[in-house]
Amino acid sequence: MVTDQQVVDALRKVMHPEIEQRDLVSLNMIRNVGIQGGTVTLTLVLPFKEVPIKDALVDSVRAAVTALDASVQVEVKLVEMDQQERAAFTTEAEGGPRPAQSMNQVGQTIAVLSGKGGVGKSSVAALLAVALNRQGQQVGVLDADITGPSQPKLFGLHEPPAMGPTGILPAQTAAGIRVMSINLLLPGEDEAVIWRGPLISRAIKQFWQDVIWGKLDYLIVDLPPGTSDASLTVMQSIPLNGVVLVTSPQDLAGMVVRKAARMAYQMKVPIVGLVENMSYVTCPNCQERIEVFGPSQAMHTANQLGVPLLGSLPLDPELARRCDAGEIEAYAADMFVPLAAKITERTSA
Amino acid sequence: MVTDQQVVDALRKVMHPEIEQRDLVSLNMIRNVGIQGGTVTLTLVLPFKEVPIKDALVDSVRAAVTALDASVQVEVKLVEMDQQERAAFTTEAEGGPRPAQSMNQVGQTIAVLSGKGGVGKSSVAALLAVALNRQGQQVGVLDADITGPSQPKLFGLHEPPAMGPTGILPAQTAAGIRVMSINLLLPGEDEAVIWRGPLISRAIKQFWQDVIWGKLDYLIVDLPPGTSDASLTVMQSIPLNGVVLVTSPQDLAGMVVRKAARMAYQMKVPIVGLVENMSYVTCPNCQERIEVFGPSQAMHTANQLGVPLLGSLPLDPELARRCDAGEIEAYAADMFVPLAAKITERTSA
Repeated sequence: MVTDQQVVDALRKVMHPEIEQRDLVSLNMIRNVGIQGGTVTLTLVLPFKEVPIKDALVDSVRAAVTALDASVQVEVKLVEMDQQERAAFTTEAEGGPRPAQSMNQVGQTIAVLSGKGGVGKSSVAALLAVALNRQGQQVGVLDADITGPSQPKLFGLHEPPAMGPTGILPAQTAAGIRVMSINLLLPGEDEAVIWRGPLISRAIKQFWQDVIWGKLDYLIVDLPPGTSDASLTVMQSIPLNGVVLVTSPQDLAGMVVRKAARMAYQMKVPIVGLVENMSYVTCPNCQERIEVFGPSQAMHTANQLGVPLLGSLPLDPELARRCDAGEIEAYAADMFVPLAAKITERTSA
Repeated sequence: MVTDQQVVDALRKVMHPEIEQRDLVSLNMIRNVGIQGGTVTLTLVLPFKEVPIKDALVDSVRAAVTALDASVQVEVKLVEMDQQERAAFTTEAEGGPRPAQSMNQVGQTIAVLSGKGGVGKSSVAALLAVALNRQGQQVGVLDADITGPSQPKLFGLHEPPAMGPTGILPAQTAAGIRVMSINLLLPGEDEAVIWRGPLISRAIKQFWQDVIWGKLDYLIVDLPPGTSDASLTVMQSIPLNGVVLVTSPQDLAGMVVRKAARMAYQMKVPIVGLVENMSYVTCPNCQERIEVFGPSQAMHTANQLGVPLLGSLPLDPELARRCDAGEIEAYAADMFVPLAAKITERTSA
């Protein structure tokens, strides 16, 4: 009979058909090798359940084991990677970590996602970074919105980033938040990035792999609207601890946010909760609370998704002014403190 | 010496290296053939100035002409297609018009673009369609926002579209506006479309080529945020008479809208003008006019772009309610009438 070790050694010689010079064992695709009676059992871990080469992989695993001993039965259990495993797999598949990446130490990675644009996702991402920074945490912001980047403007950053020995150094805000965005690399902030998906994906991967983030307690990823290339790339390449969904009171926004939530489910990224933005505005003259986008649907949407409602934020002309002036760090975001606390509590759990 | 006709006949035998069985003449890439003294002059029309095969095309044109008479000089002038020519070229390059497309008669095609999400682009597109429909025009709405489609919800459309003999029949609103959107084809409106760019582009092309629009005075195209695949595909494949830019008062939105405007310039699509949405909200209690997104930057943005400011629209909770209820056609959009008039006046000019 064969031994566990013989099986593993045999599978070390099974190369992945699509990844150059990498075998299934070193790619962490083989787990729980066991032998009982005349049966070898093992788990084959796939990035997605329905990868087109699934059957070919199973066949090559079987063949490698039965080549050791033609009399054994082989039982292959298929399991899908979770989001963190998949991100690590993607890194391995692309040749292992890059110089900058291998020196970075990123604690928690949180993506801010809305599906729908204009619900204030970027300012929620920035305010979350500001709240964590005020707590004394080391914080980075990765602006994954390549065609509509807003982080540099919110933080008043205009200088192109410097090059370090192993990659790009992120820009630093007045309070020390590290920021990387395509707009820091463009000759002018109005310049359009008219790229199809593959180039957008490559830029996002570079922001993760080739930026010298250093030691960070939190990396906040600002995702663009939509569930296409940019969001897909972030969810496939960056190990996310959770996503925060941002919506506005309109049911129309809720519908698109529900699409984004479905994407997160399908990509197995845990949803931290839902933030409703632009819930109301307070009349500066008579203090009337005006629900400009209609009555809140957030509790309803949160219940539909089975995620906690983390909070509701009002529309504040002062925030709009601070954003346009590049002074988001100076904004007194008191209502953001409990919200940030809830988010960090849930992602570190 | 050679004659014009001989030159054209010779160029009819020069096949496009990337388009199967099509020659340069039938693709409308050759113009202004003339002969003076011993020199043949002609214009080679390229979809983009810097197509990679530019030099190869010029060489093959020269070779074809000098094969007629080795003593002639050949002067090839290079010209770039405008947006309408490029859309026609794209159709030809893909095998000519499809059955539905060849029977459609679309008068004016207007795209609504913002670059930035959430500035109310979709509701501006829908209200423009409604205003034109109320004038007695035949109007269609092509929802090119594949990952965040909102047109069916705005118009209260839920039934899947029927299949006609040559393609897909668009849904019809109560007032007779024809609408095509990915959300009409999904099993549930919350379903996510997690597609990379090529699939998104294909869906948009199908909405143009395989939908039985019939006879339309106006087709309004609702573009998604961003300047990536979806917007690129619309600008390359659909002959647009103009784009309407939508912004909100924030300079942050203005910045992203300026990126979108640059894209339109680069793609040679005329910009009809700028609409500022969400300019202010009127307090229902004290009638105070509150600039929730800060003071208007629209005139400044319009001047920077050198395009007319078509109008400023307030935030209206009633519009949000009507949108969520699928009743946008019942919304009394009085302030939209002059705006629609300005748009149609400029696109038909």
